[in-house]
Amino acid sequence: MSFPQAFVDPSSVAVVGATEDRAKWGYWLATGALAGAGRREVWLVNRRAAQVLGRPCHATVGDLPETPDLVALCVPSEHVLPVVRDALAKGCRAFLSITAGLGSDEAELAAMLRRAGARMIGPNSLGLFNATTNLRLAWGNFAPGSLAIVSQSGQLGSEIAGLGARADLGVSRFYSVGNQLDVGAADVLESLVADEHTTTVALYLESFAGGTRLVTALGALRRAGKHVLVLATGASEGSRRLARSHTGSMTSALDVVDAACRAAGALRVATPRELVDVARVLDVTAPPGGRRVAIISDSGGQGGIAADLAAAHGLRAQVFTDGLQAALRAVLPAAAAVSNPVDLAGAGEADLQVYAKVAELVAASGEVDSVVLSGYLGCYGEDSPSLVGAESAVIDRLGRLHRADAARVPLIVHSMSAASPAVTRLREHRVPVFDTIDAALGALDRATRLGGRPRPAPATERSGPGAPPVEPTGAAVPEPGYWAARAFLTAFGIAMPEARRVTDAAGFAAACASLRPPLVLKAGWIEHKSEHQAVRTGLGPDTAAAAFREMHERLGSGEYVVEEQDTRPGVVEMLIGARRDRDFGPTVAVGHGGVHAELWRDVSVELAPVDRHTAAGMLDRLRSRRLLDGWRGQPAVDVEALIDAIVAVSEAIAATTGVADIEVNPIRVGPEGALAVDALVLSRSAPEAVAEAAPEAAPEVSGVNGHRETTEKQEKSREHVH
Amino acid sequence: MSFPQAFVDPSSVAVVGATEDRAKWGYWLATGALAGAGRREVWLVNRRAAQVLGRPCHATVGDLPETPDLVALCVPSEHVLPVVRDALAKGCRAFLSITAGLGSDEAELAAMLRRAGARMIGPNSLGLFNATTNLRLAWGNFAPGSLAIVSQSGQLGSEIAGLGARADLGVSRFYSVGNQLDVGAADVLESLVADEHTTTVALYLESFAGGTRLVTALGALRRAGKHVLVLATGASEGSRRLARSHTGSMTSALDVVDAACRAAGALRVATPRELVDVARVLDVTAPPGGRRVAIISDSGGQGGIAADLAAAHGLRAQVFTDGLQAALRAVLPAAAAVSNPVDLAGAGEADLQVYAKVAELVAASGEVDSVVLSGYLGCYGEDSPSLVGAESAVIDRLGRLHRADAARVPLIVHSMSAASPAVTRLREHRVPVFDTIDAALGALDRATRLGGRPRPAPATERSGPGAPPVEPTGAAVPEPGYWAARAFLTAFGIAMPEARRVTDAAGFAAACASLRPPLVLKAGWIEHKSEHQAVRTGLGPDTAAAAFREMHERLGSGEYVVEEQDTRPGVVEMLIGARRDRDFGPTVAVGHGGVHAELWRDVSVELAPVDRHTAAGMLDRLRSRRLLDGWRGQPAVDVEALIDAIVAVSEAIAATTGVADIEVNPIRVGPEGALAVDALVLSRSAPEAVAEAAPEAAPEVSGVNGHRETTEKQEKSREHVH
Repeated sequence: MSFPQAFVDPSSVAVVGATEDRAKWGYWLATGALAGAGRREVWLVNRRAAQVLGRPCHATVGDLPETPDLVALCVPSEHVLPVVRDALAKGCRAFLSITAGLGSDEAELAAMLRRAGARMIGPNSLGLFNATTNLRLAWGNFAPGSLAIVSQSGQLGSEIAGLGARADLGVSRFYSVGNQLDVGAADVLESLVADEHTTTVALYLESFAGGTRLVTALGALRRAGKHVLVLATGASEGSRRLARSHTGSMTSALDVVDAACRAAGALRVATPRELVDVARVLDVTAPPGGRRVAIISDSGGQGGIAADLAAAHGLRAQVFTDGLQAALRAVLPAAAAVSNPVDLAGAGEADLQVYAKVAELVAASGEVDSVVLSGYLGCYGEDSPSLVGAESAVIDRLGRLHRADAARVPLIVHSMSAASPAVTRLREHRVPVFDTIDAALGALDRATRLGGRPRPAPATERSGPGAPPVEPTGAAVPEPGYWAARAFLTAFGIAMPEARRVTDAAGFAAACASLRPPLVLKAGWIEHKSEHQAVRTGLGPDTAAAAFREMHERLGSGEYVVEEQDTRPGVVEMLIGARRDRDFGPTVAVGHGGVHAELWRDVSVELAPVDRHTAAGMLDRLRSRRLLDGWRGQPAVDVEALIDAIVAVSEAIAATTGVADIEVNPIRVGPEGALAVDALVLSRSAPEAVAEAAPEAAPEVSGVNGHRETTEKQEKSREHVH
Repeated sequence: MSFPQAFVDPSSVAVVGATEDRAKWGYWLATGALAGAGRREVWLVNRRAAQVLGRPCHATVGDLPETPDLVALCVPSEHVLPVVRDALAKGCRAFLSITAGLGSDEAELAAMLRRAGARMIGPNSLGLFNATTNLRLAWGNFAPGSLAIVSQSGQLGSEIAGLGARADLGVSRFYSVGNQLDVGAADVLESLVADEHTTTVALYLESFAGGTRLVTALGALRRAGKHVLVLATGASEGSRRLARSHTGSMTSALDVVDAACRAAGALRVATPRELVDVARVLDVTAPPGGRRVAIISDSGGQGGIAADLAAAHGLRAQVFTDGLQAALRAVLPAAAAVSNPVDLAGAGEADLQVYAKVAELVAASGEVDSVVLSGYLGCYGEDSPSLVGAESAVIDRLGRLHRADAARVPLIVHSMSAASPAVTRLREHRVPVFDTIDAALGALDRATRLGGRPRPAPATERSGPGAPPVEPTGAAVPEPGYWAARAFLTAFGIAMPEARRVTDAAGFAAACASLRPPLVLKAGWIEHKSEHQAVRTGLGPDTAAAAFREMHERLGSGEYVVEEQDTRPGVVEMLIGARRDRDFGPTVAVGHGGVHAELWRDVSVELAPVDRHTAAGMLDRLRSRRLLDGWRGQPAVDVEALIDAIVAVSEAIAATTGVADIEVNPIRVGPEGALAVDALVLSRSAPEAVAEAAPEAAPEVSGVNGHRETTEKQEKSREHVH
């Protein structure tokens, strides 16, 4: 169903519940609607007033002279159904419901709308706003600008708009989608793809139900050249508890939200403040192309603090080349530092042009992707009126540098002055200026993350970032048991040790004769193998037969598996997991395996399937990446083989809709090849219930690259199975 | 030497270099000094002006009618020596030198001052300020308040003062100590201990040379009831490079600075913004007594974001008891969330008193240590004039709650309004209000860290936090070699395996007969044992003799050590290190040992010696702490024995001034006892050079509990020795 133009630029609006009481929504919607009366017909509706705000008022929508294109409702909840019924009869097909608390009436309302082919934003919306069509049906005022806000929480959307307004960042459109009875966030996002006035989209959601469609919409926005910033909660037990209590929503696991953002070229931020800071940068400049940053300060202390903070964000203030240092030395006094950070050492006071000279040299060097200027600039004229002219001149020169298309090296300024005329002048040049180095570098870091993000290819259903198209073939779900799991995974290209399926002693003996010892014997149908002593390792010609006899006597008949044991030296144990996420569908994870895997929780996650480039990126985000490159004199291991295995597992989960969970743990990666030496494949059913319950049971983990649930389950299975 | 009263409240001041040019320091010092002319005599000195700022001007200090108590210098650098000489002849004994760039004149200046018994702040000071004595000899203006600023970088000090002024946080005293030719930061800090107008001290230093005296001064401030916030750089290669280039300072390793702060009851922050935010909380409230926080919001979205951010800071928004939840439910609508976070679900709009009712119930419950209110409160009156009265009333009630001595549960507010009259009213009630949740929770977290910090006992030389006094007895430095290291460490109480020193085959055989196999043979005089195959493990009666013969033939005569090998099951490998820090003296570190120690860098550091309580706290900060409590079904290990070993190593380094470095790696901790199975003790000399060079060579590590250098050396030695 398309997004009605009535939510973008209605030809007429009726405000039902209009009032003159400023403490009521009916006041704000009425005055807001009337502000657009030059563009469209506005009718006020109130059952008990003949006149509101100096305009004639109608008792019901049915009484209006024409059919309004959009009906805004701010009436007591018990009036919503009758009013909508009346309006539908009048021919209305687009509604905005501020009114909340409809309780069981919501179902009937949904049915009424569906039958009539009508659309509604809300209930429990905090309104909508469109700067370019003069449409304001919301509390408060909005400064026009380039940020679109789409929020499940109206007040959080307001907070973003308010923080933006204080920082000269205006709003293009504002949609508080509320309970999403009909129109959902994905509808609104899709409607923004073609909006030329929007540069950045701010999205807040409590639940990511229908995540696949959201990812598609975010990807489309990205391909249309817009930046998308996502606010989400769910990192703590507190926020998960609150979401359930507040809207009944289950929050999504944030590591999967992050994976979805990466797949769509979007970026998750943690707070409205972070969002507005980075949006301010994106409002005036393209994201930097890389993480190399130049830091220029007129104070050694401020430069040092900036350098430490940049490093904490993963921005790299690398040493300049000798050539650049020499060029800087030529314009700076002997006491200056020129290696990066640059410390002007008082040169600015002697000649303000030095700020621009240094910034120009650095920006043109090709050695950095962004330039940060931190310190006193912006205060000169404020403190010393005689310097106003000189300060303006250097600011104009910095503005020209910032605008120059040739130098795609954005300039970010931290000024000790919050709002001097000089700072205003910098802003007029569209240079992002912040009053703390924290905000400047936080925003630069996040803008850079967006710059590094490739524009996603058009998403196909269940297709991850840049992945080769994988048809969800509905490949056969393997039977339970280790032998079938082996067959399933090897069919997708996972290398596993040579093995035989046996049921009796004779078959076992024959199998042993055809395999190279040492061997591993597993009772393949038993899930928690260690617990039941259903696995024996290190078997040779002398010990194998007795081991089989003992296990067979104890555990009885069944599908045994005998496998060559991987004894290669110099092996690194990793784990690969895959899981079908409730909201976003198939995901894949890779991490540090081994006995301490759960302690370090060194795991990275992506939507599945992934291509080799994405799989390599997953490894690069791991701290344990260094183990693969040859740790403490060991030879480097076969990273390409590990990448192949990640891709294969990701394709297996994506292609087999009946599989809920795949766990390859450990996968032993040596200098020559990667061998999965244990694995578990779970079909959908019981595990889904586990996944539903997990957010409650899961321990609170903050700041960890988690894939929490899978890891824990994998740990458990590892403990039991191996 | 005591801190002259002339730097606090001089009876008279002379400003040398006074001018009317606003772009010059002489203007700011002259006008600042004149602002205190009601309290003290002020003379302006300028060789070329008869009159400045409407006041008669003297050509030299010698020409003044009396001897000024304090002389402030803002003259060209080549004039400093003559002016000081003249002033000393006049009898002056206290100087402030703004002038910088004295170069080689600094040494002569220092000598002149020393001979005369005179004191100087600077050169390269950006001035000083004392709110209560009307003393302003600095650039710009200061709002009076409770924050004392002591800064090696004047401009960074100004930035702190400026950020404070914008947030209603004034300055009690400001000392820019500059190059610290004579008066150093420790002098100033000592002078602040008795200053009743100072609540919080902000300290910025590039170098912590003389760290022991600084720690003593910080501890004295803490005991006097003042909070100390420390800004330091050195977390990145960039800032270390800059510090060396800027002032020639070597930055201290930040993990040792953090240890020093803990020892002194101070807290390190990363930016001026962080410093000012937490100082604002400390300005109006005592630090919370613990990390349990209640989050109250009128928006589910804002509450969720606050909960996630609180968790990221390690603040705990725990579920309220059933009793408290029932009490909250009684004042809130059915849709509200009451488990923590509390979501008012529109109740505030219906009755503003609900904010106070909920806050009172929560604060009185005993279930939390602080209360955070996030959202719309502060905006009611601004948006709806009819609600001004109701909003004021609830704010007054919240103010009473906040002030109530009975409820030692501070209230912190995040309001969507930055500066409404309601927000101002909250501030008047001394409730800390922030315009972002980021700032509110960041400040609360840091204030809480200070609250949790025990007031340090009076520090004795080289004595750590609450440690038993350890006399630096100058215990004998052990000879090089493993046998002597063993003897040294066991004398301090470290348990090591039973061992014998042998030199020939006969002695070896006798030793083996008296020890329980398996045994370990080490060529004790060889430092990099693995590299030279100078260690053999797993020796039994069958293999020992041949192993000794082979090693003796290959490596020749020397002091061999044969040791019982620790084969206990369920052992966790940890490491203990101790190092004599250039600035702060002896330190001790404990961390995760084993083959991946360097990968995870899970280490905590304290100043040595430590007591058992502090040692236990070091373990609690480790992520690998969980391994000690019984990992994946293993029995818990003997943590008390590990604590004993940490204490013992810390006492060994503290007591033996000739020792630079102690490395016990690994120490194997089992269910019954901890055994150090390898160790290295280095005397001071070569290693000191290593320590000096390390900051340059060390890789950039951010956010890691580092003890970087020691760990790396330990790793290296582990590789070689074991």
